[in-house]
This record gives sequence, C-alpha cells and structure tokens, in this order.
Amino acid sequence: MLKEKEKYVVVVGATGAVGNEMITTLEERDFPVKSLRLFASERSEGKILKFRNRDIPVETLQENSFEGIDIALFSAGADRSKIWAPVAVRSGCVVIDNSSQWRMDPGVPLVVPEVNPNDLEWHKGIIANPNCSTIQMVVVLKPIHDVAKIKRVVVTTFQSVSGTGQKAMDELLQQTKDLLNFREVTCNVYPYQIAFNVLPHIDKFLENDYTKEEMKMVNETRKILGDDSIRITATTVRVPVFKGHSESVNIETEKKLTANEVRAILSNAPGIVVFDAPHKNIYPLPINVAGKDETYVGRIREDESIEKGINLWIVADNLRKGAALNAVQIAEKLIEKV
Amino acid sequence: MLKEKEKYVVVVGATGAVGNEMITTLEERDFPVKSLRLFASERSEGKILKFRNRDIPVETLQENSFEGIDIALFSAGADRSKIWAPVAVRSGCVVIDNSSQWRMDPGVPLVVPEVNPNDLEWHKGIIANPNCSTIQMVVVLKPIHDVAKIKRVVVTTFQSVSGTGQKAMDELLQQTKDLLNFREVTCNVYPYQIAFNVLPHIDKFLENDYTKEEMKMVNETRKILGDDSIRITATTVRVPVFKGHSESVNIETEKKLTANEVRAILSNAPGIVVFDAPHKNIYPLPINVAGKDETYVGRIREDESIEKGINLWIVADNLRKGAALNAVQIAEKLIEKV
Repeated sequence: MLKEKEKYVVVVGATGAVGNEMITTLEERDFPVKSLRLFASERSEGKILKFRNRDIPVETLQENSFEGIDIALFSAGADRSKIWAPVAVRSGCVVIDNSSQWRMDPGVPLVVPEVNPNDLEWHKGIIANPNCSTIQMVVVLKPIHDVAKIKRVVVTTFQSVSGTGQKAMDELLQQTKDLLNFREVTCNVYPYQIAFNVLPHIDKFLENDYTKEEMKMVNETRKILGDDSIRITATTVRVPVFKGHSESVNIETEKKLTANEVRAILSNAPGIVVFDAPHKNIYPLPINVAGKDETYVGRIREDESIEKGINLWIVADNLRKGAALNAVQIAEKLIEKV
Repeated sequence: MLKEKEKYVVVVGATGAVGNEMITTLEERDFPVKSLRLFASERSEGKILKFRNRDIPVETLQENSFEGIDIALFSAGADRSKIWAPVAVRSGCVVIDNSSQWRMDPGVPLVVPEVNPNDLEWHKGIIANPNCSTIQMVVVLKPIHDVAKIKRVVVTTFQSVSGTGQKAMDELLQQTKDLLNFREVTCNVYPYQIAFNVLPHIDKFLENDYTKEEMKMVNETRKILGDDSIRITATTVRVPVFKGHSESVNIETEKKLTANEVRAILSNAPGIVVFDAPHKNIYPLPINVAGKDETYVGRIREDESIEKGINLWIVADNLRKGAALNAVQIAEKLIEKV
C-alpha cells in the first residue's frame, strides 16, 4: 500500500553536478519518494543514473512531463527554468528551482529552511533556492542578526570550481596535469588558467563593475533575511579548489557582541558547526567540509577596527548546503507543512 | 678605477627564496655593486651561486664578516637578524632587514620607498623591510590616503606559498602530484594539505585569535603611513598559488571618491599599474604579476554599502615588491641620499 506521504518527484538537470547531488541527497536523507524521474538536455538522453540501486533512464522534457508530479527539483540553468517551471506549475507541481531565474521575483519566496521557513507559506508554485555563496552566509548571519541586528557586511569569497559545474572540475584537473608536465594549458570554462591561480571574476560583470555573483550576495541576503536595511558589499573570487566555498565575512552589528557570545549564539543555531579553536589549528577548511551537510564557522574574532564588529570564516559544501541539500530541505519542509 | 658610488654588498640568507631574488634583483637593476658576498646557514656552506655570470661561494657569518661592507641585505629570519644585524651595524654597515625582528622597533624606520622615503633619514644603521602583504597594500593606500584620508580598511588576502619559502613551493608541487596519482599527501610545512585547499592561517596565532600575519598588516600599515588613526582589520589566507599575493581590500575614506577618481589617482602614483577593465576581463591575476616589479590594482568599485567606500583587488609578486625588490629599492634610495 502506498504511504500517503510518498511523493512523485522529478529532477530537471539530473546529469549536472548539482542534479547528481540532488539524487544522492534524496537517497541519503531517505526522502519519501514514490517515484523518481530524471530529465536533462537532449545530449544526455538515454543515459542511465542510479537511485536506490535502481537504474533510471534520463529523459528529455515534454509538455506533459509534469503531469501527476508533486515536486520538481530544477537545476538546469535560468533559461530552462524560465520556460519549464511555469509548465510544471500549470500541471500542479511545486518547483524548487536552483537557478537565478526566479530568485528576485517578488512573487517567489527565496528560502533557506533554517533562516526563513515561513516564506514557504506564500509560494505560488515556485520556490527559489538561493545562490550557493549566499546560503552558507545567511545560515550564519541569521542567528546573529536576531540577537544583535546586522548593519553591514563586507564579504570576500574563495569559491571552488564545482560551483561552475563538472566541466570546471575537469578543467582544473586537466590544467594541473598539463602544468606539471610542462604543457601549455587550455582555457574553455574560465577566461584564464584557474590551476595555481585565483580569479576575481565569477559570473558576468554588470554596469556597476560588480559581478552578478557579487550582487546576488547583496540582494538575495536582504530578501532572505527580510531586511533591506542591511548594507552588504561583496568581492567573489574563484580559487583552485574542487569542492567547498570559503568566505571571509566582516560584520558590523547594532548591539556589541563578544567573540564568545557569537560562538554561543552560533553553537545553538541550526545547521551550523562552530569549528573554532585556532590555537589547536582548528578552523574550517574546504577539503574537510566536502560531503558535509552543515555550514562550518571558525576564526571568530572581534574586529578591533570598529566598536561592534566581528570577523568570521565560513565554509560549506557548495553542492550540498549551497545547492542540492538546501533544495531537498525545502522539499522536506513542504511535506511537513502538508 | 673604482667608481665612488660602487658599494660593497652582502646578502645574508642568500640561498632562500627571497635571498635568491635579492641577488637577481641587484643584477637586473644594475645596482652599483663593487663586490658581493653571500652568507647563509652552515647547511648551505660551499654552495655556489651566480652573480653577473660569476661564481660566488656561500659563506657562513663570522664576527668580522661585515668589515668594510657598505650594505647588508638580510633575509635570514628574525632570530638571525636579532643576533647579526647589530654586529653588522657595529662594523659601520647599513642593514636592510626583511625579517619581522626590527619592524615595530620605534628606533627603526619601516620603509616602502614609494610611500615613506623620508623615514630613511633617521635610521641608525638598521632599516626594516615590511611584510610582503603589507607592502603591496600600502603602495596603493598611500596615494588614496593623501587625497581622501583613509579611515578604515577591511582586508582579506590570498597569499601564495612562495611567501613561506622554497620548501612550501616544493610541498604544493609534491602534494599536487600525489593527489593526481591517488597517493596520500604528507604535510611538513603547513599543518594541512595546501594543494586544492585554502588555509585561513598564516604565521602563529596570537592571544586575540588573530594571526601574527594579520596583526602585521594592522601595525605595519599604521607605522609606514605614519597615522595611528587608521583602523584596520585583516584576515590572511594561504592559497595554492606558487607566486603572487592577491588582496581584496575595502576602504572607507573621509572624503568621497568615485571609482574613476581612484583610477586617476592610482594611475599617477609611483609603482602602480591600474589594470582595470572588467568588461574586457582585465583584472590582475597572480600568475600574470609573477616576475613584475609593479603592484597591480583592479576591480576598483564604489562600495554602495557605505557613503564613502571603495573596493580594490591588489596583486603583486610577493618575492619582488613584497620582499627583495623593496629591499633593493631602499638601498637605491640610500645611495641617492649619499
């Protein structure tokens, strides 16, 4: 007999780095899946992926693909979301979309379950999953904001290549091999060599000379925290790391907090591991958080350059909490609410 | 006939990464060397290094090693500087020291020739070369400070392994090879794997949970700019890059400056290349500045989170402008003044 809570689920963009991680996450968290169908572009048609030890063929989307589906996890880029998410919604399916397409749409909630679960209540079929670099930051900002009101954030990121996708991971690997063998490197994914280099350039440049990635951190953070008064400036940088984004975050609060108070606040907050004993060389590292669900925070220090400031070092697995896990957690919250 | 301006020069710590670069820099800049002697620890005794196509044996220091020497370039660590710099001074030699030993000594000038050349006038035999991450930042801060008075700096660094020395470059290379060959990595220089990782830990941790490197950026910057009112907070991070330090710098000024005004100010300042056309993918990269003398700055943007703020991305060769070149430039200024 079919348990009522079991859902018909699809993943759109199933063959990408995040899509793959979505399938793994559904399985690992034992999400009540009645049936899983997988979609991707024509290039991937006929591929077979595994879910709960069963083979699932990858299909291409059709107008009727969403009929009878409860939940669609999208990670197929903004252009495909723009076309297909409304199709899915018309079929009565709830879309959790990992692209930037709907994030700043005032009619679409932008949700991190630990931060603003109540925004799920007003969704009209589409729920947006925030950008990876934003998610791990707001998970940490939220409990501090609740206690001390954050006035300003200055953030610099160290983002891994998996945020760009599987091709970028391949490119980092290939360039590294080429350099070790004294061969010339070729650049297809990034404009310049990423191996043994850092690139202060993620996503397109905008009119104001910030990148889209940088402005996502500004605008999405305000929307998720529901507070447009928070002032944010960001510099986002790609580093030759395969998985895990790191962030150097400087915050100014209205109420003074000591470093110990911040440690206590974050230790009691959901989804966070305080990993902060610098004198024992304990601080978060991207190689250690790969595969982890929590957001790790360390290097918690009072900023002596202002009266009420804190420095933080925040690291999370960008494919998990930064993308697939957050999307599945949204789905879990939706089911709870039903 | 001997030109009067030709000097008797020694390099102490000649076999290290910076020492080597000092020898190269003396040669490349055609520094008026009458005679060059090279010193290092006992381990390196008998090694032969090249200067102007001649073989020079590496010697160990003796009490009388500095007799008749005009200029000693030291890059042998704080402990050796503490012992040997006073010995050199007693012999009438001027010491330009790259270690942290004398930098914050009120009796020792801390000099970046483009920034505070006049501090050379009050030296008593020892002149300190600032820390690499500080030098490239103050070269850029100074012309802005002169025009608009800098109130606060929030800096996050991306520092290459050559800042630690040749052994760290070897370790990054070896770890990378090991990982590509599915072998376990070993960590001798850093507490954790640096290949495909980032470490928010440079130099020792202090009582306030900042690292020594972070506090160097705070204290040395104030001393060089001669302004203790500038408030600075730093997060310093090691990245898997061989050469070239990058810095994400956020500044708040007393007088409002537009991004274009900052570009104009920096374009006319000594030792700086403004490399900033983001829409053409023009921004400084560590792989491009390796071997360059200038400090490169790009990603110049107005910070909309405060009324009078600017974001900058500053990159320089940490072994050259960050160490050897700055030391030789100090020596050049000294000669000019004679």
